[in-house]
Amino acid sequence: MSSVTMADAPVLNKTELDERKAKAAAWFVNLRDLICAAFEKLEDDLQGTPHASLPAGRFERKAWERPGGGGGVMSVMRGRVFEKVGVNVSTVHGEFSEEFRKQIPGAAEDGQFWASGISLVAHMRSPKVPAVHMNTRFIATSRAWFGGGADLTPMRPNEEDAADFHAAMRSACDPFNPDYYPRFKKWCDEYFFLPHRNEPRGAGGIFYDNLSSGDWNQDFAFTKAVGESFLAAYPKIVQKRMHETWSDADREHQLVRRGRYVEFNLIYDRGTTFGLKTGGNTEAILMSMPPEVKWP
Amino acid sequence: MSSVTMADAPVLNKTELDERKAKAAAWFVNLRDLICAAFEKLEDDLQGTPHASLPAGRFERKAWERPGGGGGVMSVMRGRVFEKVGVNVSTVHGEFSEEFRKQIPGAAEDGQFWASGISLVAHMRSPKVPAVHMNTRFIATSRAWFGGGADLTPMRPNEEDAADFHAAMRSACDPFNPDYYPRFKKWCDEYFFLPHRNEPRGAGGIFYDNLSSGDWNQDFAFTKAVGESFLAAYPKIVQKRMHETWSDADREHQLVRRGRYVEFNLIYDRGTTFGLKTGGNTEAILMSMPPEVKWP
Repeated sequence: MSSVTMADAPVLNKTELDERKAKAAAWFVNLRDLICAAFEKLEDDLQGTPHASLPAGRFERKAWERPGGGGGVMSVMRGRVFEKVGVNVSTVHGEFSEEFRKQIPGAAEDGQFWASGISLVAHMRSPKVPAVHMNTRFIATSRAWFGGGADLTPMRPNEEDAADFHAAMRSACDPFNPDYYPRFKKWCDEYFFLPHRNEPRGAGGIFYDNLSSGDWNQDFAFTKAVGESFLAAYPKIVQKRMHETWSDADREHQLVRRGRYVEFNLIYDRGTTFGLKTGGNTEAILMSMPPEVKWP
Repeated sequence: MSSVTMADAPVLNKTELDERKAKAAAWFVNLRDLICAAFEKLEDDLQGTPHASLPAGRFERKAWERPGGGGGVMSVMRGRVFEKVGVNVSTVHGEFSEEFRKQIPGAAEDGQFWASGISLVAHMRSPKVPAVHMNTRFIATSRAWFGGGADLTPMRPNEEDAADFHAAMRSACDPFNPDYYPRFKKWCDEYFFLPHRNEPRGAGGIFYDNLSSGDWNQDFAFTKAVGESFLAAYPKIVQKRMHETWSDADREHQLVRRGRYVEFNLIYDRGTTFGLKTGGNTEAILMSMPPEVKWP
């Protein structure tokens, strides 16, 4: 796996760090609101499509608390375009167990951590509309860094959609560092891969972690740009594809492809397996599971 | 997890060990044939039930080879009683990677292994009929032992079926050692548990591993008894329940419960995760996946 150098940032006083935490956490909530509004709008736009007779979906929100500290809000919509989409924001803090300290930057000596982020997975009713995942986060131990990414999972290869999505991710990266897009694209390809199937999970995107360049404002701006580029790109792809018709065979194929998503998330995804094995919120973590799946 | 003492068996010459391997491998194939015949018979018996209009299922067989040595035969049936049932027999040999040697008894110095076994998972069309899993195996490194078990997964608690299944497992255990049933039942309860749901996978059964009492013939006879007791008990439970009617709500509930099965197998099951991460036969390993699942 690629790695991003984590520069030793200047030591912050508590007030400065608290300001950064508050800014990041507020952004994730703001992004959640923008995304939910854009997705609800797509539900309204569905005229003349195969599922126009169903009611337009609306997000339902559910707050949860983490026994160890903090909590979050899940937003879930089951609509006519979005068969199931979950957007989770959370801000949590606590102490890593001894077992996990050595795996986390800056946590070896002091297990204290604080983490805030947004995580989104959308499974679409139409097999012609790609599924998507987006997640960005800010984490502080004795160090502090950003991580995240976004990747597209079409049910059948579609070069045009993949190119549009990658162009958006590139546009988020290039203003910050010309190395970001090629490096984070490669990282995504390596991470979202199913070795037991010898298959990529989808058409890729970008993935980054441990991002701490030494300029927090730039790193935060980059993380915001990833979210904004996602918001600019994905709804357009949905809008373009959601009016296409599909066959029962397309739907069957979609349900089988979703099985690959389940396999990846439960076997390999670090966020999922780490979360489930360390007492995370099961309902929020497994919000990523597709609503209906087949293994033929 | 409970542990079974592995006595130091008398050193065998190669001919003796080869005889034991041949006997065990032949038994697993024989058991497979008995089980497939019993299950096909249940498909024929389905008169007056909700799915009597579907054709009776028959097993289809597919042989596979393991690049590192050996292979197996998958038998899969998609019928009107059995929505999907897979029975896999395999006899494989090779060398464990350095990484896995320390996890396997008798493999620390010499990574050579030989393993033969039968593995079965049945997902039923009717939500009133419990799903089931059974697996027994004989493994030889520089030591040799049996392992296996069987457990029942009803969609809703059913005390009568659970009692019948447990009585059968006890009847396999008691003639060999009065400690077996309580010890192996507890091991099963501990193993087939989903911590992230705080739920058992089902109604339990027995689970045992590293069984090498010092009397190979007795251990082999016990492993045969587990298979025979499974064969005596499960088809009777199916026959009793398959004529019951069910509602759409029962079916929905079944599809959701199957999600727990997927979660267990992909996150916790050692055979599945070990197999997938060490280049096992993906199709044979994931034969255990339910045909259709929902995460609501």
